[in-house]
Amino acid sequence: MITLDLTLPDTRYPIHIGRGLLDQVELLLPHLPIPKVAIVTNTVVAPLYLVRLQKKLAEHDVEVTPIILPDGEDHKTPGNTESHFRRTAAWSLRTKNYADCPRGGVIGDMTGFAAACYQRGAPFIQIPTTLLAQVDSSVGGKTAINHPLGKNMIGAFYQPKVVIADTELLATLPTRELSAGLAEVIKYGLLGDASFLSWLEEHMEALLAQDPDALQYAIRRSCEMKANIVQQDEKESGIRALLNLGHTFGHAIETGLGYGAWLHGEAVAAGMVLAAAASAAMGWITADDVLRVETLISRAGLPIKSPDLGVAQWLELMGHDKKVESGTIRYVLLKALGHAIIQPGLPKSVMTKLLTGRHIIATEQSARQS
Amino acid sequence: MITLDLTLPDTRYPIHIGRGLLDQVELLLPHLPIPKVAIVTNTVVAPLYLVRLQKKLAEHDVEVTPIILPDGEDHKTPGNTESHFRRTAAWSLRTKNYADCPRGGVIGDMTGFAAACYQRGAPFIQIPTTLLAQVDSSVGGKTAINHPLGKNMIGAFYQPKVVIADTELLATLPTRELSAGLAEVIKYGLLGDASFLSWLEEHMEALLAQDPDALQYAIRRSCEMKANIVQQDEKESGIRALLNLGHTFGHAIETGLGYGAWLHGEAVAAGMVLAAAASAAMGWITADDVLRVETLISRAGLPIKSPDLGVAQWLELMGHDKKVESGTIRYVLLKALGHAIIQPGLPKSVMTKLLTGRHIIATEQSARQS
Repeated sequence: MITLDLTLPDTRYPIHIGRGLLDQVELLLPHLPIPKVAIVTNTVVAPLYLVRLQKKLAEHDVEVTPIILPDGEDHKTPGNTESHFRRTAAWSLRTKNYADCPRGGVIGDMTGFAAACYQRGAPFIQIPTTLLAQVDSSVGGKTAINHPLGKNMIGAFYQPKVVIADTELLATLPTRELSAGLAEVIKYGLLGDASFLSWLEEHMEALLAQDPDALQYAIRRSCEMKANIVQQDEKESGIRALLNLGHTFGHAIETGLGYGAWLHGEAVAAGMVLAAAASAAMGWITADDVLRVETLISRAGLPIKSPDLGVAQWLELMGHDKKVESGTIRYVLLKALGHAIIQPGLPKSVMTKLLTGRHIIATEQSARQS
Repeated sequence: MITLDLTLPDTRYPIHIGRGLLDQVELLLPHLPIPKVAIVTNTVVAPLYLVRLQKKLAEHDVEVTPIILPDGEDHKTPGNTESHFRRTAAWSLRTKNYADCPRGGVIGDMTGFAAACYQRGAPFIQIPTTLLAQVDSSVGGKTAINHPLGKNMIGAFYQPKVVIADTELLATLPTRELSAGLAEVIKYGLLGDASFLSWLEEHMEALLAQDPDALQYAIRRSCEMKANIVQQDEKESGIRALLNLGHTFGHAIETGLGYGAWLHGEAVAAGMVLAAAASAAMGWITADDVLRVETLISRAGLPIKSPDLGVAQWLELMGHDKKVESGTIRYVLLKALGHAIIQPGLPKSVMTKLLTGRHIIATEQSARQS
């Protein structure tokens, strides 16, 4: 097991990464001052891990209230958040800890937000069960739910008490979801570490085959980079925005196609290709660099072409993204592979070419099948 | 004008107190980095001050989107909060500042919560228009909305950029609301400053007559005490709970009778009498002290008797309050007048006597008329 520490002005928490951590309840117990916890999970994860965790906790007299929500991004709604509140309020107050076993970021984002708001802040614990959640969404305290007008529009910065990333849980992960998680892993290489990018090129097959050492290193390096950035800029007033590489385009895809049509990681993957293409159009990286990005993303089993939303809808959807400031869309682009920067606005000609060019495919072909 | 400063680990903001501040837009402008603002207010305040403020801001090319919500505690709901989000999202994103002109704490609590959650945090400004909001709810960053299971159950700690308390705005305040604000003013005397309590006894008539100097002093002293406590304990892990004097009982009254039947300040007033009576039952203060509390509260035009909710409902409602920890209700009581303490739990005999005794009146007599 590796433990990273994330230190912020008013909190500090460990991120444990390793095999078989779900059964090591001693990692959880210090964060449950009161032996009552609501475990929030979804219909996919509950049959796999809920009873196992519940039994382990029962051995230490921890009373568990399971809250099982439907699976998928389209369920990250105010209604399901309200369902947290109702079910939590129904037991007892201040006797309140939240833990979640998210499959992907959905349950984690929503539970984090519910925990942030419930009585102005209930302690919560992240036990991510997908690669995407382990490398990205469970770390750093971004919580949110979706709104018809934009993804993650309603949310809070709210940090967990501990993150427990058990790589063994990924064994039951469908290939498509493993790939979706690799999109965020590739993101870290692209945005800030060229040597990690090369490492990924060398180990992509090992990662897809779930080689334990390769997985642990990829998760560790991703969490290290995320922790490092979050420590410098918790509330995203500056460099934290770099973590949004591929996300401005990606969120537009997710909102444009309807939440759940593409997985978040898939949308980010295609979005990173667009960001790379835009960076090439700006003359910062070469066509070969773009090809290198496409090749790695493609090898990870991810889409490299975005759906054809039409230029007008693309711009409209990106204009609704949170990363817009004073009406100018702030793109995260690449000055080089392994070096992302924030670019306020892009020439209209570049955007039009990009959003009608070879990185776009007709919408009817773009709905991905699992 | 007096300016107090509230300094917290990751923010700092001014509280301006004085006459005619609404027209001094230079107090607002530095906090509007983007010249667009949603002004959230209610149907009562809008006709009084909205156009005036909008006009002043227009002189400085600030574009105003008014969001006018219904008046009263029973409207502090998830639905009205959602209405903020929808209307705000409809203009444009990151071009987002919230300001509010609350009449009472309702709009301020709700707008603060909406601002806290909107894109994980939009800047907001408090321009309280009632005494209660000027002395209490606009300062310190507690924001929340109500839930059927308890008052302020869903919320956030989220600080404004500036608080502007214009005492002139109180001229249009109904007497009943002025009294409700005085409940919170009296609270500060009771919980931490015996000499301020004496000052209030000497100046109650001047306050009710809205003597400008008396008002300004009362607001200043209340805000000073609140700022001092909040600076020591922003997230209410310790002494901030003292500010809840009268509130555990008061919230039970509000929830028990239905939000809006009693004003918040009225419920707190009757709640402070119960807290004083409980303190006397513990042998900490004398029957004369309780009488002194009752007399001052009564002179302020406030109720000193609580409605008869029945002992079972009282305990049930107080058990749902946020101030419950590990199943024990944490009461704020008085070791002396001017010295509040936190008392975990009270003997059942004391509670029963208290909640059936002379400080309780039959419910049918208790619905207050404005």
